[in-house]
Amino acid sequence: MAARARLRLPRAVARLISLVEDASPQLREVAAALAPFTGRAEVVGLTGPPGVGKSTTTSALVSAYRARGKRVGVLAVDPSSPFSGGALLGDRIRMQDHATDPDVFIRSMATRGHLGGLAWATPQALRVLDAAGFDVVLIETVGVGQSEVDVVSLADSTLVLLAPGMGDGIQAAKAGILEIADVFVVNKADRDGADTTARELRYMISLGRREIRGASWRQPIVKTVAARGEGIADVVAAIDAHRAWLTEHGELEPRRACRARAEIEAIAVAALRARIGDLHGGDALDRLAEQVTAGDLDPYAAADKLIAGVQAT
Amino acid sequence: MAARARLRLPRAVARLISLVEDASPQLREVAAALAPFTGRAEVVGLTGPPGVGKSTTTSALVSAYRARGKRVGVLAVDPSSPFSGGALLGDRIRMQDHATDPDVFIRSMATRGHLGGLAWATPQALRVLDAAGFDVVLIETVGVGQSEVDVVSLADSTLVLLAPGMGDGIQAAKAGILEIADVFVVNKADRDGADTTARELRYMISLGRREIRGASWRQPIVKTVAARGEGIADVVAAIDAHRAWLTEHGELEPRRACRARAEIEAIAVAALRARIGDLHGGDALDRLAEQVTAGDLDPYAAADKLIAGVQAT
Repeated sequence: MAARARLRLPRAVARLISLVEDASPQLREVAAALAPFTGRAEVVGLTGPPGVGKSTTTSALVSAYRARGKRVGVLAVDPSSPFSGGALLGDRIRMQDHATDPDVFIRSMATRGHLGGLAWATPQALRVLDAAGFDVVLIETVGVGQSEVDVVSLADSTLVLLAPGMGDGIQAAKAGILEIADVFVVNKADRDGADTTARELRYMISLGRREIRGASWRQPIVKTVAARGEGIADVVAAIDAHRAWLTEHGELEPRRACRARAEIEAIAVAALRARIGDLHGGDALDRLAEQVTAGDLDPYAAADKLIAGVQAT
Repeated sequence: MAARARLRLPRAVARLISLVEDASPQLREVAAALAPFTGRAEVVGLTGPPGVGKSTTTSALVSAYRARGKRVGVLAVDPSSPFSGGALLGDRIRMQDHATDPDVFIRSMATRGHLGGLAWATPQALRVLDAAGFDVVLIETVGVGQSEVDVVSLADSTLVLLAPGMGDGIQAAKAGILEIADVFVVNKADRDGADTTARELRYMISLGRREIRGASWRQPIVKTVAARGEGIADVVAAIDAHRAWLTEHGELEPRRACRARAEIEAIAVAALRARIGDLHGGDALDRLAEQVTAGDLDPYAAADKLIAGVQAT
């Protein structure tokens, strides 16, 4: 309980998420201590192609939830996010609205090249924020990468953002992320083409409607101008409606179990991978790779040799 | 040898790549048969944010290599690629220049949600094209996702495409993919801002110059208008120069060994993951996930239980 109370301090939360990013051995102990306090946070995913205004929308959603008195955590796993140093100064300043608010915690996840990557780190960082008592956790990712889409689709509710007049970008988004959306947001709706984008989306929804256990959630399309806060209340209402639907249809628990499965599997796979390295003193893979490169061994036979030790232990 | 000869048939190549996408058990046998014939292809990666003209550039590079008499394979692991059905009709028609050429093989990789994903499937598809005698294999990915960037960075030479006037998109690209570029291409160089983009790149290269074993490859910046074929010869020359540099500095073999390591590891991890499922009859993960969701178990303890069987076998 003392540990829990300390978690109210932003610095403690930041330290724990750093342990996740560093894949620290201490995480095992931390996870055990936090387990009883998790499962409360509402998890909202937010994704879309670069340039649609993801971070502006995230910032506006933070304000909306704060106005309701909710504590809000943000995990930005988006290389184009201002939190990862990618985007324009204006965005960075805009997010600083929340910089001095102790009930808002914003963290950019830097995991590239890390053991297990986003699939490993993001659920564990989410777990820290959940245990720290944040009522809502927003996960922002760019919606064009496999790992990024996989991660954000594990939220309770997933928003997919589009903007009019983006040509290829929107086409890409439509191709890759249509199926994970619970709510569509057409941002920058004051631009030409917003109605066309919404109409196209409506048509595609009518074609590809998702059926879950017989019941069906019809994805709403919300128009916003996030930079001016327009339509943000409608987005929050759509998230609430989706959550109510999940609860009513008994779908919230399965979603959360799905997230836990992904988290456990990512940890298990990382542990097995580490064991492969330990068993062979680290250089077995190098020697096998040389043989494969030379054409003396195929990669399946090499993989067999690599995991033989894991079986035998 | 008969198997090798048959591989000259596009249909045989397509069938083998489908085995990869389906994660077929036959792959083990196929990989063993192909191993002696691999290691010849020149592997070129091509990446950049959506809308920079990746597929137009890929198409122009295919033409350039064909003019040299090279057989060319293309693996598009890009959700915004026309080959995956994402992009505009114009691009699709443009690529059809090559549709009737038996010495060009173009394949869109559809791996989302698959066992091991891109890291698992792409090197194996590459291996098929290599064994089938393609002189050059181009791998096209969108440069904003972790998995996509990881995959393309395993090429012998990696091109990073940018375009002027893309705002957030370029910023994102700069933040995320600067470090994997061997050659920078500023496409759509007839647009305003091309010089600015090139100048900014040059400045960033001067700051972040990559050092490999004491020697240093200075990434060239090539301007192109791929839609009109302008500058494509310079891109090919830059790839050739990079390849000569790799050879001269003994860096080609380490790169290929690195690719083989990633391939072996992805296969080994997928095999271990499959074994986890087999051992527990498939539902152990479900039961553990329920306990984690309820807060009765932490994910590390759950992962321990999951892999206990793998150890004991």
